[in-house]
Amino acid sequence: MNGAESLIRTVAAAGVDVCFANPGTTEMHLVQALDDAGGVRPVLGLFEGVCAAAADGYARMAGRPAMTLLHLGPGMANGIANLHNANRGRTPVLSVVGDHSAAHRGRGAPLESDIEGLARPCSKWVRTSASAGSLARDGAEAVAAAGSAPGGVATLIVPADCAWSEADGPCPPIAPDPEPAVSDDAVEAAARLLRAPADRPVTLLLGWGALTEAGLRAAGRIARAAGARLQAETFPARVERGGSIAVAPRLPYFPEEATAALAQGSSVLLVGAREPIAFFGYPDLPSELVPPGMPVQTLAAPGEDATDALERLAGALDAGAGANASAPRKASPLAGAAGPPPPAPGAPLTPITVSQVIAAGQPEGAIVVDEGLTVSAFYVELSTGAPRHTYLALTGGAIGFGLPAAAGAAVACPDRPVIALQADGSGMYTAQALWTQAREGLDVTNLVCANGTYRILLEELSRAGVDDPAPGARALTSLGDPGLDWVALATSMGVPGRRATTAGELATAVSEALAEPGPHLVEMVI
Amino acid sequence: MNGAESLIRTVAAAGVDVCFANPGTTEMHLVQALDDAGGVRPVLGLFEGVCAAAADGYARMAGRPAMTLLHLGPGMANGIANLHNANRGRTPVLSVVGDHSAAHRGRGAPLESDIEGLARPCSKWVRTSASAGSLARDGAEAVAAAGSAPGGVATLIVPADCAWSEADGPCPPIAPDPEPAVSDDAVEAAARLLRAPADRPVTLLLGWGALTEAGLRAAGRIARAAGARLQAETFPARVERGGSIAVAPRLPYFPEEATAALAQGSSVLLVGAREPIAFFGYPDLPSELVPPGMPVQTLAAPGEDATDALERLAGALDAGAGANASAPRKASPLAGAAGPPPPAPGAPLTPITVSQVIAAGQPEGAIVVDEGLTVSAFYVELSTGAPRHTYLALTGGAIGFGLPAAAGAAVACPDRPVIALQADGSGMYTAQALWTQAREGLDVTNLVCANGTYRILLEELSRAGVDDPAPGARALTSLGDPGLDWVALATSMGVPGRRATTAGELATAVSEALAEPGPHLVEMVI
Repeated sequence: MNGAESLIRTVAAAGVDVCFANPGTTEMHLVQALDDAGGVRPVLGLFEGVCAAAADGYARMAGRPAMTLLHLGPGMANGIANLHNANRGRTPVLSVVGDHSAAHRGRGAPLESDIEGLARPCSKWVRTSASAGSLARDGAEAVAAAGSAPGGVATLIVPADCAWSEADGPCPPIAPDPEPAVSDDAVEAAARLLRAPADRPVTLLLGWGALTEAGLRAAGRIARAAGARLQAETFPARVERGGSIAVAPRLPYFPEEATAALAQGSSVLLVGAREPIAFFGYPDLPSELVPPGMPVQTLAAPGEDATDALERLAGALDAGAGANASAPRKASPLAGAAGPPPPAPGAPLTPITVSQVIAAGQPEGAIVVDEGLTVSAFYVELSTGAPRHTYLALTGGAIGFGLPAAAGAAVACPDRPVIALQADGSGMYTAQALWTQAREGLDVTNLVCANGTYRILLEELSRAGVDDPAPGARALTSLGDPGLDWVALATSMGVPGRRATTAGELATAVSEALAEPGPHLVEMVI
Repeated sequence: MNGAESLIRTVAAAGVDVCFANPGTTEMHLVQALDDAGGVRPVLGLFEGVCAAAADGYARMAGRPAMTLLHLGPGMANGIANLHNANRGRTPVLSVVGDHSAAHRGRGAPLESDIEGLARPCSKWVRTSASAGSLARDGAEAVAAAGSAPGGVATLIVPADCAWSEADGPCPPIAPDPEPAVSDDAVEAAARLLRAPADRPVTLLLGWGALTEAGLRAAGRIARAAGARLQAETFPARVERGGSIAVAPRLPYFPEEATAALAQGSSVLLVGAREPIAFFGYPDLPSELVPPGMPVQTLAAPGEDATDALERLAGALDAGAGANASAPRKASPLAGAAGPPPPAPGAPLTPITVSQVIAAGQPEGAIVVDEGLTVSAFYVELSTGAPRHTYLALTGGAIGFGLPAAAGAAVACPDRPVIALQADGSGMYTAQALWTQAREGLDVTNLVCANGTYRILLEELSRAGVDDPAPGARALTSLGDPGLDWVALATSMGVPGRRATTAGELATAVSEALAEPGPHLVEMVI
């Protein structure tokens, strides 16, 4: 058995069962090993950014890493943006990158580059295999590194000679380090905070480890027992939502609004979330979103077991409620609201009507992959009353995540409908994902918010006092002239597409797309 | 004037007149400065890889750098593959990347990353501006660094506060270091080599600095005077071809063929080319392409003035021909051949017939951007008799270069027709370039070789003894199931498209596309 086969057998034994790949010559032995070893399903992406985001979406849903297989430094570089998102979201990904053989490196071949240097900024673990004999062990360690808390991207660079040379055989799986439980002290300190008298409620700021079904149910108990308010980080990797699960409204994107939301509380208790800071810095605003002077305490840091921490805290508060609770405070609303009635069929499509139609149409068990950007906040707010669903956000801010992450989520969960809420500008980054959706027959309903602009940039210009951009700025923020035809684009890659311009057309299109297996795309003209 | 405007005024004064951009929030002040300062035309790419390759194509034709403007680490990462190509081709590019403000950095904002770390592998020069006051000077130095011999990518990272804070004003241009002339000793040594008795001719291996019109005319004189043979590096940044210019056949891609070609000579004289090595390493082949024991001598290293060196060498040989020349050797054929007659109109499209039709149809003065991959060798061989044209190859092996580089070349040379000879697999990497072609009304004829596979990988598998790939390998090398509809894809981005399945259909399509202004696409079904 050569090194390539020893690696594939190793990662398959460790639970890796899919490989999102765009290989080249240096990876041909690894490609053959996928066939020879079996157990790892190869899925082709027509661009590496597709592979990386698909692995991200897959792992968020499957709870275990997928493998990506990319070609040398430039191929990996094409995946960096979406690997960055995965790494920021603490999503485990096994990123395997081929390299030139040892004998060929250092001679200036056209494709030679510093792969480790490129990988480090988007990886928690990077290694270049030294020999065919060490490749299996490297693979086992890489899978363990990706999955160990906090999760992230493990990059294993495989020189071609390590793949093609003879090896001993596979390596047994190495167990990843689980999320550590928080200390009893942290739970008790949190309970004290929640029981202490205050004029306003404590804000529980929940990161994605706390946004599980169990975590949110425990958070709901805490909110009821202690009159606390819940808030979710703005861009969580995964949230369980809808049905009877407690609602944690997302922290607003713009800093003034986020600070105003937090100012409704007396202090902030971090549960699986970092101390919140603004997405971008602005000339006259602080980066910190917590109002100046407001106390911040940590129950669970990112990578600690936040759900367990919430359950233990809820238990402590339930048990002590009769004896120690201060005067009951007004709890924030925790149940999802059905929202306003759906818009009239003839209503034009706006961020609000689009969100209403999707929320009303999404079926039980849907997975919503959200890269709707300027539409997202409306959708998140208006979908609290939707049936039970799982929501995945853009964790690292690198656009081009949505369409391929939806593909990855659908590979992980073939029995659940996937809805990609997708902005048009970011959708153009990795539109090749539509082809992978078609080839694999994935049940993805792609809903493209076609407003024909980089709307967020117009909002940023407006924040900077520019409401009427000059011609250059206008050209660089517009997707018009010519407008993009998303129906033709989808068709070109084998995905049936249609266009909706009213709420009624959209409701029909969404309903029919969801009813028919395989991918569909609806261009929502906003 | 803020730092942003001081930078744009500086680079405009240094000759930068176009900016291929995909900016974000951190670059909004630079975007406004493009309007306020004037002189630098903003061109939007819908993906950063488009911007980077467009800048590459632009600079190869214009002979001066364009600016790219990309958004933070992930945005720049999307451009790395094509910046790698530019840097490998010694093409000057001014890569400006926005960063968070100094006050916002180091706090773990979602889009924060190690931009310098990402930039270094694809840049010859990297700097992060320290203040608004230093930004103009940094810009002047960056333009000079990009253009100084050997050219390459200069990455200037601009923290948002450097852009928005008050600055003194622009900085005068700094002259780039020109290509140094080679020494008289190098010319004399080359002349001695060419005059020395040998059983076979000397091979002049010409890199792109030698592949200018003047360089090739001088090389032709040398070949005639000394019976030398000419060979061009496999993937030159730019070659002047056709008409009466001497032909330098390209060194074959596969190592066995390249070594066999060089074995026709007695020694190798490098003129603006590196010592040739294989594109990839193989288990049983050396990386070096020069046959073992064959002497290699350098007339001009890459980055030295190869054209001047050839002219001086030609002069030395002409002057001394009567007195010192050894017995005349048989010169290699230097004139372009008209090639075989064009294929019958009903002939099916193959790499050969496609090449014949294009070579027969390309007009005087065309710029041919070649990312045809497995079709390229046929085209290069069969187009030696075409009218005068300029040819640009994929220098760094990172695919996704062709369509956007064609856009950049067309921006540089609006009066010349541009032909993009484009493989389908690599075309899908940066197909968004078609939209930029449409928006800017660029006169590009995109000819897509639609063979529905990553053909080069099938050839590599075959070289490894696998003629009938297993299902996984087949899936990862096929672009079928579903097939790509390039006509619909072009239409979706505002580029008129049509399909050709025979030589006659292709000839008509090419002729009509060339006759009508603006971009067109022809899907050549091979």
